[in-house]
Order: sequence, then structure tokens, then C-alpha cells
Amino acid sequence: MSSTAATDLIFGLTRVVGLPALTGATLSAEDIAQIVTEADRFCAEVLLPGAQAADRAGAVYANGVVTTPYRETYAKWVEGGWQSLAAPVEHGGQGLPAALWTAMTELGMAADTSFMLGPLLTAGAIDCLLHHATPDQAARLLPKMVSGAWSGAMCLTEPGAGSDLGVLRTRAEPLGDGRFALHGEKIYITWGEQDCSENIVYLVLARLPDAPPGSKGISLFVCTKWRADGSRNALRAGGIERKLGIHASPTCVMLFEGTEAELVGEPHRGLPAMFAMMNNARLGVGTQGVAHGAAALRLAEAYAEQRVQGGRPIARHPDVARMLMEMRATTLAGRLLALETALCVDRHAMTGDAAALERLALLTPILKAWCTDRGVETASTGIQVHGGMGFVEDAGAAQVLRDARIAPIYEGTNGIQAIDLLVRKLAKDGGAAMRALLAEVKRIPDVRLRVAVETLEHATTAVLEAQGRDADAAQSVAVAYLEAAGWVLGGWMVARAAAEDSSTYGPIADFYLRRLLPRAGGRVAEIAGALAA
Amino acid sequence: MSSTAATDLIFGLTRVVGLPALTGATLSAEDIAQIVTEADRFCAEVLLPGAQAADRAGAVYANGVVTTPYRETYAKWVEGGWQSLAAPVEHGGQGLPAALWTAMTELGMAADTSFMLGPLLTAGAIDCLLHHATPDQAARLLPKMVSGAWSGAMCLTEPGAGSDLGVLRTRAEPLGDGRFALHGEKIYITWGEQDCSENIVYLVLARLPDAPPGSKGISLFVCTKWRADGSRNALRAGGIERKLGIHASPTCVMLFEGTEAELVGEPHRGLPAMFAMMNNARLGVGTQGVAHGAAALRLAEAYAEQRVQGGRPIARHPDVARMLMEMRATTLAGRLLALETALCVDRHAMTGDAAALERLALLTPILKAWCTDRGVETASTGIQVHGGMGFVEDAGAAQVLRDARIAPIYEGTNGIQAIDLLVRKLAKDGGAAMRALLAEVKRIPDVRLRVAVETLEHATTAVLEAQGRDADAAQSVAVAYLEAAGWVLGGWMVARAAAEDSSTYGPIADFYLRRLLPRAGGRVAEIAGALAA
Repeated sequence: MSSTAATDLIFGLTRVVGLPALTGATLSAEDIAQIVTEADRFCAEVLLPGAQAADRAGAVYANGVVTTPYRETYAKWVEGGWQSLAAPVEHGGQGLPAALWTAMTELGMAADTSFMLGPLLTAGAIDCLLHHATPDQAARLLPKMVSGAWSGAMCLTEPGAGSDLGVLRTRAEPLGDGRFALHGEKIYITWGEQDCSENIVYLVLARLPDAPPGSKGISLFVCTKWRADGSRNALRAGGIERKLGIHASPTCVMLFEGTEAELVGEPHRGLPAMFAMMNNARLGVGTQGVAHGAAALRLAEAYAEQRVQGGRPIARHPDVARMLMEMRATTLAGRLLALETALCVDRHAMTGDAAALERLALLTPILKAWCTDRGVETASTGIQVHGGMGFVEDAGAAQVLRDARIAPIYEGTNGIQAIDLLVRKLAKDGGAAMRALLAEVKRIPDVRLRVAVETLEHATTAVLEAQGRDADAAQSVAVAYLEAAGWVLGGWMVARAAAEDSSTYGPIADFYLRRLLPRAGGRVAEIAGALAA
Repeated sequence: MSSTAATDLIFGLTRVVGLPALTGATLSAEDIAQIVTEADRFCAEVLLPGAQAADRAGAVYANGVVTTPYRETYAKWVEGGWQSLAAPVEHGGQGLPAALWTAMTELGMAADTSFMLGPLLTAGAIDCLLHHATPDQAARLLPKMVSGAWSGAMCLTEPGAGSDLGVLRTRAEPLGDGRFALHGEKIYITWGEQDCSENIVYLVLARLPDAPPGSKGISLFVCTKWRADGSRNALRAGGIERKLGIHASPTCVMLFEGTEAELVGEPHRGLPAMFAMMNNARLGVGTQGVAHGAAALRLAEAYAEQRVQGGRPIARHPDVARMLMEMRATTLAGRLLALETALCVDRHAMTGDAAALERLALLTPILKAWCTDRGVETASTGIQVHGGMGFVEDAGAAQVLRDARIAPIYEGTNGIQAIDLLVRKLAKDGGAAMRALLAEVKRIPDVRLRVAVETLEHATTAVLEAQGRDADAAQSVAVAYLEAAGWVLGGWMVARAAAEDSSTYGPIADFYLRRLLPRAGGRVAEIAGALAA
């Protein structure tokens, strides 16, 4: 039997966002249902059972070697061919839509976030190489990565360079034969070292000797843990972080000590190359937020059904029922919004539609920030449903919160997302793309949604005016604006679900529109208060 | 130099809630400043330095023995006489106001929550015995507890009896000489066993053989780990929980295996006796929420000042500045609300004013739930200010979130608080006490606050009507109502602070009233949506 998440995902893909139609029915609703159901089974049978034990064991570092609890799990991942799901056929992939990879990401992240981060990073590295590697590089690297035999790691952050990558110091010294030697220290490298894959492919941002200062002097390099001749490359893990959550995902300090590397793409164009693939990476992280909501809900619903207080299961107590419904409605909204966003990727890839790319650019920061903040909130509500048991690690609810808390931070903090939305996405076209999106939302015949959209339209004007007048003031309400947009777009998605299947999704959408949508208005009121003279 | 928290507390006690005037100036503003400053120094010098190491070491259980990292710290606590601060002079206490104990609670909890829980539980047990023990019991137990030589532990919850204590099963068997033997298992017993105090006094809810079923058949007993003759009583710790946070505070399973005990108060009147002291305990937990906000803010401010990105400290980045101000304003509001609530305790104790007791009853659930939810939120925002470093345990920000997450659960979940507010506090008098409070708030000459109060007055009418018509529907909006009330009362407190010292508190109050107070309106809109036909 499929999980609620899988049922929603199949429904969302086939009936809400219309994936079969986009593929010209080469991918039927039945195909989609079969793939999602199999993904759901893999996650339930292979990933979920070991996730709590993996958290307790954690990743272990000793003398440059990192041991994870995932050797066998990872082998099954590779054997199942899951890494290749959405990768191009010419590199050994199955060529399926990004929206199906999004579904897999949600299911996998909900089952075991620490594990799923490895495949997610590999997918990001594949994506980056697809766009920027030479045919020769692609031929050497991609088939191994697409199969999962080799994993990928993204090496951006340094101790002094986080949100501001322009100041990074890792340097690339030309070896004279077209290759380079990398020298520097990178931190927060997810799955930077591990014992699961045969080899690790690192994408590294570094400076060439002649690089101009700042963000226009950063180039992208690729190197591998093991070189083609089987010898070890000059790089090693210097340690792993002791973190709040994702204990079994090794977050490494990586030391590049004359590492043999190749340039990827043009010199000094590393940052744009990285940012180009960030939409996909941020879609993946937004999906993690949905997954954490789903994981929290699964645990909370099971607990609330069996825990009896006052003569009835606590799921029947009005305030607990309210919490469960809030978790359900928020997670559904995020889930469908992730699919809507993923479909922009597919629409652009399949039809070359430029508008889809623009829509993707607009939705991405909202999805990333709104869904990951909801993931943390929903995980916290899940703990609350459990009462005292929620604070005890055995119940699993606490782990969901610990694992969820990183998602608003990495791949660009949620504050960075909000500023991206305001400065790069809204201000760029005076809000035209946003207004076009909101006009679509208004076509839903629901007065609550229409009122919320109109309120958000006014807020759009207000933040754009502020941005022109006093950029700091505008940026101080950027998060509030993004949140308001997220609540409205979530309402759009659940209303569309209810329109397709009112018996299943009508009550959830009604709860959302009555009780959660007003949060958009609250955020807009905050913006108005902040910007008032 | 005093911390910001201590400065606020002194200002709040002396100039906002008017503690010197209540004491008829027997306690001057200078006395208050001196005590709070000394408490602040004790917390900064004795508690804070070891708090992170204590978290890492944790409480350790082996064969019924619990080892904590606090033996020396606890000795200094006792030596400093801090336990006796607000205890009655006739039992060896200093007889100072509850509001000063609240200040000490905030400072101590912000420095080391796991440690401060021990003294807080002892204070609760002292309070309970003061009201219900015989003079003989009081004479034997209280002086030792007031000095801190003996600690106190509250034994209520059982595996099947959490929020619903009526079904508890621990039984008390009469021994024929006026004493009883207790048999049963209690869980979640904070500081139920430890290596710090000479003896532990347990207050235990249990059933007498002739007890009626349900909540009217529960009696209160007292027993000690070591009996008067120096022999060990028949009770032991069966284990400690592995928890999300407060790792160094032992949360024990306590096994009563024929424990020699005495009845406290009347037979079958145990639950009312416990509930009578719950106002104070809940005031203490609400104060913990404030403390977690304060701890998060202390770390975030320090980090944001020294972390430079984009050529300036991140504290100057508009969205980070917004987060810091949100943390500051929310914490100030909670801090002052805790003092306002504590002053009701003192006013009733010093003047016998029945209205103060009614006000206390009304404020208590709001303080407990609103401040602890804000504590969790603020702790999470504190992590966000740190970026990636916030997720790494070394920074300390993650520990604040882990420690904060229990406060919305224990001493009655926040859902229980909201239902208490609605059913027992509002419905009892048709909302009269609430309306009287809101009339006071409206006297502040600020249009934003007045509008918010009027909105809340309408919501009060709406939830009371709903409660009469459909109790389940009303209870499903109880949390939203409590939250709205919390945001309004927080606004009341910061506005009063600004009226007293506009240069220091004016900008904070302005931020609150512009940007945070709209959350009250958002919650009221949610209530309206939920209750709409």
C-alpha cells in the first residue's frame, strides 16, 4: 500500500500539474503511478528502517577516513538504478522528468535525510557537468556518476566565505599541461568523504593566478578522489562537524593539498556556472522541507491514533486534530508547489519554453525558503503532538526537527532567498512575472484566495517602491514578503487539488484557506507596518 | 558590567511593574538592582562557563545511580544562598518577592537550563509544602529545602497518565501508623535522582485503597530518598531518558517499591493541591521561554558583530538586523510580561488582593504558552543568524533550540494552556477578567495597540460564543486565541517600557508595534476563518 505522500505525489503529477500531457502522453499516468509507487516502496523498505540507527551511529571520522552507516544501503540505491532516474539517456540515464526526481527526493528525504543527501549532491554535480563540462570530461565522469558508482560533492564554502563567495581564497595553480593543482580549505562539504561510492567527484570553486578580485575571479574545477591511474589524489577530509542533525551525513572539512584538477567551463566564470545549477539544487532543498513535514506527520498521526487520554485517542482531541490538519495541509501545499516548480524545469527542457524558465526563477526562492521554514515548523508541531514523548529521541519526532533545521540555511539561507526574490526576480521586471503568476492564481474561484492575492499585489507594489527608495528598508521586509507569497501560492495549489478531487482534498483545502491563508495577510500587515512613515 | 537581560530586569522591576512601590519601599530600587546584578554575576561566572560541557557530558545512569556534571556547581548554588531567595523567613528563607525569583529564574535558565531545572523543581516543591504540609512536616522538610541542602522532585506523570492525570495508577497502602507505602512507576521526573543534593524530597500523586476512580481519587504524598534514620527509602531510578535537549538534567523513571511516605493535605485532594501550585510552576516555565530567547540573542548578537560578509558585519545586513531586532523585541516583551505576572503573586501575598489572584490566573496560561513558543522560535532564529555555523554544535545556538523545545510541552502542554485560558479563565466569567485587562491595555495611547485590542475583544466574544455552541470548534481555535492575546500583551509591555525610557526602549517598542503586533491580527483572522459558517 502506498503512503499518503506517494498517493498525493501521483495525484499531483498526473492531475494537478499535468505531467502526462507535457510529455505528450509518452509518459502515462499509469507509468507515473508505477514509478512513484516503486520509489515509495524502496524508501519504506530500504531507507526508513535503518534511519534512526544511522542517526545514533552517525558518521565517524578518524585519520582522514569517514565511516558511514550506509555502505549496504548505498549499494542497494545503485543496484536499483535510482540515481539515473532523471539523468540523460546519452550518459546512461533513464531520461525521466525532473518532476519524478522531485517525487523521489521527497520520499527519500522523508525516509532518511542523511542518506538521501548523498544522491542529491551527486544529482547536483551531474547537472552542473551536463551544462559546463567538455564532451571528453562528460564521457569520463558522467556515466559513473549517473549509475551512482561515483558520487558528487560541491565544494564552495570556506571559513571566511559563506553567503559571500566573492572572498574565497582556494587557489588553482596551472601545472602547464592544461591541468591545475588546487590548494585550499573548504568547509561544510556534504558527503565530502565517505565509504559508500567507488570514487568521489568534487566540483571546486577556486581562483586562477591571474584572477580579478571578487566574485568575477572565481573559476570552477573538477577533481576526483581517485585518479584515472588508480592513485590517490592529493586531497583529504580534515574532519567532520558535530551537528544538530543529519548526524549520519558527513559534513566535511576538505583539504586540497595540490589536488590535480581540471577547469570546467570558462576561466573566471565559475560563479555563474554554479548559480545556473542552483535553481535545481534549491528545488531539491525546498523539497526537503516538504519531506520533513511529511516525516513529522507520519509519526504524529501514528502516535495520535494510538495514544489514548481522556478516554479517546488524542487524534480526536480538537487541538491535536487541529495540529494534525495544519501539518497535513501545509505539507500538501508544499508538495504540490514543489511539483509545480519541477514542472517548469521539465517544460523548459522539453519545449524550450522561455516563460517556464522565468517562472522557475520566480518560484525557486519561494519554494526553497517557504517550504523549509514550514518543514521546521511542522517538525516542531509533530513533537508537540507527541507531548513528553516527542522530546524523547526514541519516538523519532525529535530527529525530524534536528534534520529539518539545516534546510533553511544551506544552498543559500532563507534570507538570501528572500533578497533574491525581491532584488533579482521582482525588481528585474518591475514585478511583471509575479503579477502574471498572481493573475493565474486569481482564476481560482475562491473569494478568500482572491482577497489574499489582491493583498499580495498591493504588497508587491509596496516592496518594489521601497526597493527603489531605500534598499535596506525593502530588504528588511523581504522575508515577510516571501512568506506572504508562499502562503498564497500554497493556497493556490491546495485549491487546485480540491478542484480535481474534492472528496479527498476539499477538506484539506478548506482548512488551509480558512486557517492558514490568513498568515499571508498577517505578513502583509507586517510589511505595511514596517514601511509606514 | 550587567548583561542586557539584567539591565532590562532591573528596569522592568523598578520602573515598569513597580516592585519598590508594592513593597512600600522596604525594598528599594537600589536593593533590587543589587540583587539582580549579583544574580547575573553568579549566572555568568558559575553557571554559564560549564553549560556547554555539561550538555556534552550529559547526565549518566548506571545501576540506579545518576551522575551529573553539577556537583560543584550545585554546592556553589547552595553556598550562595540562592535557593532561599524568595522562600519564607520562618523557614530560613530571605522572604524576597516572587518577582525577584522570576528574575533569577530567567538569568539561571539562560545560563544553563539543565542545571537551573533542579532549583526550579525544588522551589515548586517548597511552594506546594508551604500550602499543604502540616507544621510538623514543614519543620522537618522546609529548612533543608530552602537552603538547597535537600532538593525537591514532582512525581505526577505515569506511562498511561500524562495530560490526563485522572487515570494514574500508583497506589498508597496504609502502614497502620499514619504512614503509607507507595507502589508504582512515575516517568519524566526531572532531577528525580542525582548526585548533587544531600537528600531528595518527592511529592507523589497516588491513590489510596478507598479512592474513588478518576481525578477525585488522587492524594498527595511526600517521601524522601533517605529516611530520618539515615536508611535508604524503597525507591530508585529505573533509567533516564535520551532526549533532544537538557541532556545534563536527568529525566528519570522513578520506581516506588513500597516507599515509606506521608500524606500531604486531605485524602483524595491531591490534584487540587498540585494545581494550586501550578500557577507558580507555569510562571517558571514561561520564564524559561524568555530565558531561551535571551540565550539565543546573546549568542546571535555576538556572532553577528564579528562575522563579516560583503565587507561589513552581518549585524548590519538588513535581514540579519531584522532577525536580531525581532529576537530582542520578542524577548523583552516576554521578560516584562513574566515580571508583570510575578507581581500578581507578590501583590496577592503582600496585600491579600483577590483581583491580583484573578489576574494571575488569567495571565499564567498566556505567559506559559506564548513565551515558550516564542522561546523556540527565537532559538531557531538565533541559529539562522549564525548561518551554517548555527547548525554546528560548537556555536552553542543549536543547544538553545534543543533545550528550549521542552518548554512548550511540560507543566501542561501549550494546547492544555490554551484550553485552560478558554474554558477555565474566559468562560468562567464570560470574559470579564479578560475585558478588564484589555481595558487597561487600551489606556496606552498608541493607535496600533488600540486597534489590536479591539480586534482581540471581538475575538474574545467570538470564541466565547463558539464555546457555548460547539466546544470542540472553540477548542480548535484556543491556541490561535492565546497567541493573539500574547502578542497584544507583549505589545502592552514594550509600550509601557518605552513610555518610561523612550531612548532605550522606544526603538524596540516601535519595531514590535509595527512588525510583530500584526501577528495578533493574523491569528484573529485565522479564528474568524475557522469559525465562519
